[in-house]
Amino acid sequence: MGKVILKKDGDKRVSKGHLWIFSNEIKEIKGNPKIGDVVEIYKFNGEFLGIGFFNPHSLISVRLLSREQTEIDFNFFKERILNAYNFRKIIFPNSETFRLVHGESDFLPGLVIDKYEEFLSVQTFSYGMDLRLNLICDVLEDIFKPKGIVERNESPLRELEGLENRKGILRGEVKEIIFNDDGVKFKIDLLSGQKTGFYLDQRENRKVLRKFSLGKKILDCFTNEGGFALHCAFAGAESVIGIDVSETAIKKALENAKMNNFENVKFEVADVFDKLREYLKNGEKFDIVILDPPSFTKSKRTVKSALAGYREINSTAMKILNPGGILATASCSHHIDDDTFMEVIIESSNFSRKKLRLIEWRGASPDHPVLPTMPETKYLKFGIFQVLD
Amino acid sequence: MGKVILKKDGDKRVSKGHLWIFSNEIKEIKGNPKIGDVVEIYKFNGEFLGIGFFNPHSLISVRLLSREQTEIDFNFFKERILNAYNFRKIIFPNSETFRLVHGESDFLPGLVIDKYEEFLSVQTFSYGMDLRLNLICDVLEDIFKPKGIVERNESPLRELEGLENRKGILRGEVKEIIFNDDGVKFKIDLLSGQKTGFYLDQRENRKVLRKFSLGKKILDCFTNEGGFALHCAFAGAESVIGIDVSETAIKKALENAKMNNFENVKFEVADVFDKLREYLKNGEKFDIVILDPPSFTKSKRTVKSALAGYREINSTAMKILNPGGILATASCSHHIDDDTFMEVIIESSNFSRKKLRLIEWRGASPDHPVLPTMPETKYLKFGIFQVLD
Repeated sequence: MGKVILKKDGDKRVSKGHLWIFSNEIKEIKGNPKIGDVVEIYKFNGEFLGIGFFNPHSLISVRLLSREQTEIDFNFFKERILNAYNFRKIIFPNSETFRLVHGESDFLPGLVIDKYEEFLSVQTFSYGMDLRLNLICDVLEDIFKPKGIVERNESPLRELEGLENRKGILRGEVKEIIFNDDGVKFKIDLLSGQKTGFYLDQRENRKVLRKFSLGKKILDCFTNEGGFALHCAFAGAESVIGIDVSETAIKKALENAKMNNFENVKFEVADVFDKLREYLKNGEKFDIVILDPPSFTKSKRTVKSALAGYREINSTAMKILNPGGILATASCSHHIDDDTFMEVIIESSNFSRKKLRLIEWRGASPDHPVLPTMPETKYLKFGIFQVLD
Repeated sequence: MGKVILKKDGDKRVSKGHLWIFSNEIKEIKGNPKIGDVVEIYKFNGEFLGIGFFNPHSLISVRLLSREQTEIDFNFFKERILNAYNFRKIIFPNSETFRLVHGESDFLPGLVIDKYEEFLSVQTFSYGMDLRLNLICDVLEDIFKPKGIVERNESPLRELEGLENRKGILRGEVKEIIFNDDGVKFKIDLLSGQKTGFYLDQRENRKVLRKFSLGKKILDCFTNEGGFALHCAFAGAESVIGIDVSETAIKKALENAKMNNFENVKFEVADVFDKLREYLKNGEKFDIVILDPPSFTKSKRTVKSALAGYREINSTAMKILNPGGILATASCSHHIDDDTFMEVIIESSNFSRKKLRLIEWRGASPDHPVLPTMPETKYLKFGIFQVLD
């Protein structure tokens, strides 16, 4: 087995619970390991640190798999996936639909698996994990006896690892799923839907919004397939408008609304930035505005322009709220942390001359757990504010 | 009316939404205002900034009341308190028990009012507010027609303002209240209970813990009058032990348990630090450990020893959990922020050689809202973690 020896202090982060070793922390590589191989990791002083997946072409040269000597085989994956599953049964005892494996947070670096009742959707973001996709499917069949497993391997993260994009059925068969999320039905197409079909990470946040919806006039921006809008409609909103720039997404949102027989929700294909400006110009007001945009930045380089984007939609949203109305605002950009996003919201309130009371500051649903020792595992920020004149 | 003129840049914080002016930010005081008077605040360049309560003996020299010229009279308090009440009706539409006014977060600096159905409990932490206590009671009687209003003015914060401690009935009469918190009954004595009778700030967090309690063996440390313990017992815990160093608190916890007819909960008078060490020594294990200590530090000077205290109870709690068990851990110290508390928890996990998955990171109940422009309004941190070997 290849060996990776770290520079002096190159183990600092990993010793404190992080799972990544960057190329500039490595002193020496022995035994000529190939891309995707399991390697042993040693500190500068020769002390054994653990084993991990090796990738000489990625900035993340090694992703830690274990701090002990162990075989990365069927049993290894079975134990880790069962551990992840047991965690989901603690947090969602009455559901079989959730993110089953959330990569590093489940000690399976670069592996993401979503479970929709009897179907599984897999993504691999590290070379080592991608090479073992077949083995992982064997384990999944052993544990869950699923009707079907698909892969949704279409991510820029794969390019960084030297992997091409792919999607398709890996095992069994897939069909359209009707997922009943606490009273609201959604059609989920595992092969053509956004991401792995459905944004599970906002599932709990959508339910929190239900509490505020009764009798309210609600605007759901970047509604995608109608997630927030439909939950607000279910909870008795007077009226809900969902807008999204994607015709395909709005078509599905309309189908979902029809399937639920909701008559208090409308959807419209529009650019959110334009539409918000139009509402402001026309003096149209809402009781609740929801902003759940796609990531405005995929890299550190474009953070500044992303912040300008967040500032624009947040300050305009505050201006089109009735006094005392509610703004629910999210950011899923990895490169913008909690404090920075909160700062943008405060700036937006100063710009729009509004005052804010924070009702709740939330993250992703707990099936996307955060590894406290690894800030990179946290990405979704979700603030609910009352906006006052 | 007295005038306070700020130094150059002395308005920076207040212009961004903060409500305090510190003594070292003041250039000049005109008109000889007395302690507790309303003063006008002006920027260095003569621009009007707002009006606020003046206190020459406090580090916080002025607490902003309004950014406009307005009378601080019956109508002012009525409007602000109704605004605060309307916010509570948004977040708790089905309850009449909550923190009605949370000081600065409700734009009423130094005023705290808790509402327990038809009774009100008032605290004043600023001299200006204290002087107007009678007027505030008039407003409360006008809006709520309460059966009784008490004051619980016993806080070191009052000393900083030059106010003595007091407690007693201000209006009407008070009697023991039985508060039914979503199925769990608590006896609340507005005059002799801790704080204003009951820790309303942990009310939602106690309910979150219910989700994990079924069939579990649970330890509730610093249980006080049994808040977390009783909710876990209600939610079907196999067994719950609540410990607290206060005999009076445990007596009330036992009364609460009896009133609810819970047979799966025990209470014990003990020092939590000692008791945790004893469990560790005896190899006693739990599925869930709750740590909700009183503030370990009331000033910046003692933060270091407070952190050592948090580190000790958190690392020991992690060690006495069954593998995959849950740690729910809080800090209510104003001088320890979210990042610092998370860092202490990570250090505790490294020290006890455990791994953590964050399930949820929470704050106080939303009837203790945070003013985003004023970090001082945030104090309660509450993390729920899965603890792994």
